[in-house]
Amino acid sequence: MTLPIYGLTDLRTVLKRNDMLRVVRDACIQHSQNNVISAKSGELLFQEPPGDCHVRLGYLRGGETFVVKLAMGFYENPSRGLETNNGLMLVFSSQTGKIVAIFNDEGWLTSWRTAAAGALAAKAGAPSQVTALGILGTGHQAEHQAHWAAHILGTHRVFIWGRDPAKATQLAEKLVHHGLTAHAVATVEDVFEHCNVVITCTPSTQAIVPVSVVKPGTHIVALGADSLGKQELDPQILALARVIMTDDHRQCAERGELVHALRAGLVANTADISLGQVLAGNIPGRISADDVTVADLTGLAAQDIAIATLAVGLVQAMASGDANNVHTPSSSPNQSLNKQ
Amino acid sequence: MTLPIYGLTDLRTVLKRNDMLRVVRDACIQHSQNNVISAKSGELLFQEPPGDCHVRLGYLRGGETFVVKLAMGFYENPSRGLETNNGLMLVFSSQTGKIVAIFNDEGWLTSWRTAAAGALAAKAGAPSQVTALGILGTGHQAEHQAHWAAHILGTHRVFIWGRDPAKATQLAEKLVHHGLTAHAVATVEDVFEHCNVVITCTPSTQAIVPVSVVKPGTHIVALGADSLGKQELDPQILALARVIMTDDHRQCAERGELVHALRAGLVANTADISLGQVLAGNIPGRISADDVTVADLTGLAAQDIAIATLAVGLVQAMASGDANNVHTPSSSPNQSLNKQ
Repeated sequence: MTLPIYGLTDLRTVLKRNDMLRVVRDACIQHSQNNVISAKSGELLFQEPPGDCHVRLGYLRGGETFVVKLAMGFYENPSRGLETNNGLMLVFSSQTGKIVAIFNDEGWLTSWRTAAAGALAAKAGAPSQVTALGILGTGHQAEHQAHWAAHILGTHRVFIWGRDPAKATQLAEKLVHHGLTAHAVATVEDVFEHCNVVITCTPSTQAIVPVSVVKPGTHIVALGADSLGKQELDPQILALARVIMTDDHRQCAERGELVHALRAGLVANTADISLGQVLAGNIPGRISADDVTVADLTGLAAQDIAIATLAVGLVQAMASGDANNVHTPSSSPNQSLNKQ
Repeated sequence: MTLPIYGLTDLRTVLKRNDMLRVVRDACIQHSQNNVISAKSGELLFQEPPGDCHVRLGYLRGGETFVVKLAMGFYENPSRGLETNNGLMLVFSSQTGKIVAIFNDEGWLTSWRTAAAGALAAKAGAPSQVTALGILGTGHQAEHQAHWAAHILGTHRVFIWGRDPAKATQLAEKLVHHGLTAHAVATVEDVFEHCNVVITCTPSTQAIVPVSVVKPGTHIVALGADSLGKQELDPQILALARVIMTDDHRQCAERGELVHALRAGLVANTADISLGQVLAGNIPGRISADDVTVADLTGLAAQDIAIATLAVGLVQAMASGDANNVHTPSSSPNQSLNKQ
């Protein structure tokens, strides 16, 4: 039996931004309706050199597949010329357990679904007039967010801040090269001065956004804090917010931004609403133009399942030459897949 | 990047019984010395049709690799002409997280390491004179046990009992065809009448071995009970036993045979000794010829790690044509690997 393996080239060929936005939106909604069954492994930690491996597995109730995601972080890899993060997604039949596909995605499926979730959350609470998009952070995810959120918000104006000004400048130049009007700025305050939608995607372990810089009518999407000990927002911002959206209440109350506001006694445990319910149109993400709103994202198994399931359908349709089943008319359906 | 995938044909080519016995013995010893780091996922359960997926991950302290094992059971597969159990083992570098090998082993690596553990446990408590080997069960694992344990015990006499007499006869005929002197018998009592080493490997959920059939000087290896609700031995047998060996105390006290004897108040929580310590020669597995002894096995991540690590070394050496590194001179080093 030959295993059906697809690499990054295949995934880049078939996966289009609008398809990913659509399925990640659906995933957030399904999650909020308790239609996702998932399990998380205890993490495996390594000491010399420091590293970790996480496994998540899950499926959508009634879905034809289940997904196992392996995510590795080895923190001395850059000194060896390797990426820190790596991973695989494996898709199996939920009818027979038979393997359907292995995606040797090097962690990119996770990056893309996170980009989609950030952009959807940016739109979900954005004011009707977006002045500009602010990005705190200069890594891969910051670059994704600039493109995806600018796209979904319908703006081309982006302001970048990073702890390393040189990296902020580099990212801004890259974004300009790709058609955005991007500027690197010196302080977090500068970002909030120019932008009424701000996405935070740093690995910070303490608040980098003071409450004093947040003006009325600002929407903040906090992406960086996804594990215990990480933090980007002054918890007072959550107390100030009229709307707090979480992708998952329990996760955010354990390891997002919400946990810090809860611990400080600044918000009630019932203060947040579900991003999925906002995306479904059941709850408004913003009530009035002057609201401060916050979306706290920690990542969902449902998003992994959604993007892997989308990819399976597309690579299979592409491999079988069935261009009609490929929902991406802008792609090149005749391009051969690098099936490894 | 091409993923290094190996199938069952590759594994059958390189893995030899004595090598597997050696590394599984070492694994049991390492486990008993707390040198194994492992994590177990919550299980993913499916309803329609019924199925499950388990993930285990672990590594040996100081080892160069870590292993992720996926094991699937889909219980209506036989009606579709498919095997019930399936699986994959994935091996990664514990230095960089980079993938080293994927074994599309269809669950066989687990079968082999279980066979090795059963045979080692059979030898660990066997009387000096083995009259014959008894096997309760007629499945794949029963067949493995007959071969592996007969080999390690130095006997060719095997008695088989199964709930379905036709299957017991079929298995006995198959074993005869492979050179053993095998008989199917009608009752469990018949097995214990002829054999002083008995291995139980059924999926039973209630005791099938009554204490009344167990004669002095008998060694029993209980393999079947590896999850809550399974049971093969009358708990009185454990009360009668002078030696109880467990592969892992905590696992056996949760879901082996030991749990039933503990619940019935028949043995103390400190009644068992470690199989690994017996295999290391630190504790005797049998004190006198008339002892009844029991080995309770639930399976160890250490065994998965050991067999996958062995396989990696062998397939890599074979693929590179380095026959000197292939510890199996009886194999055909020039046979090409079906690298998928």
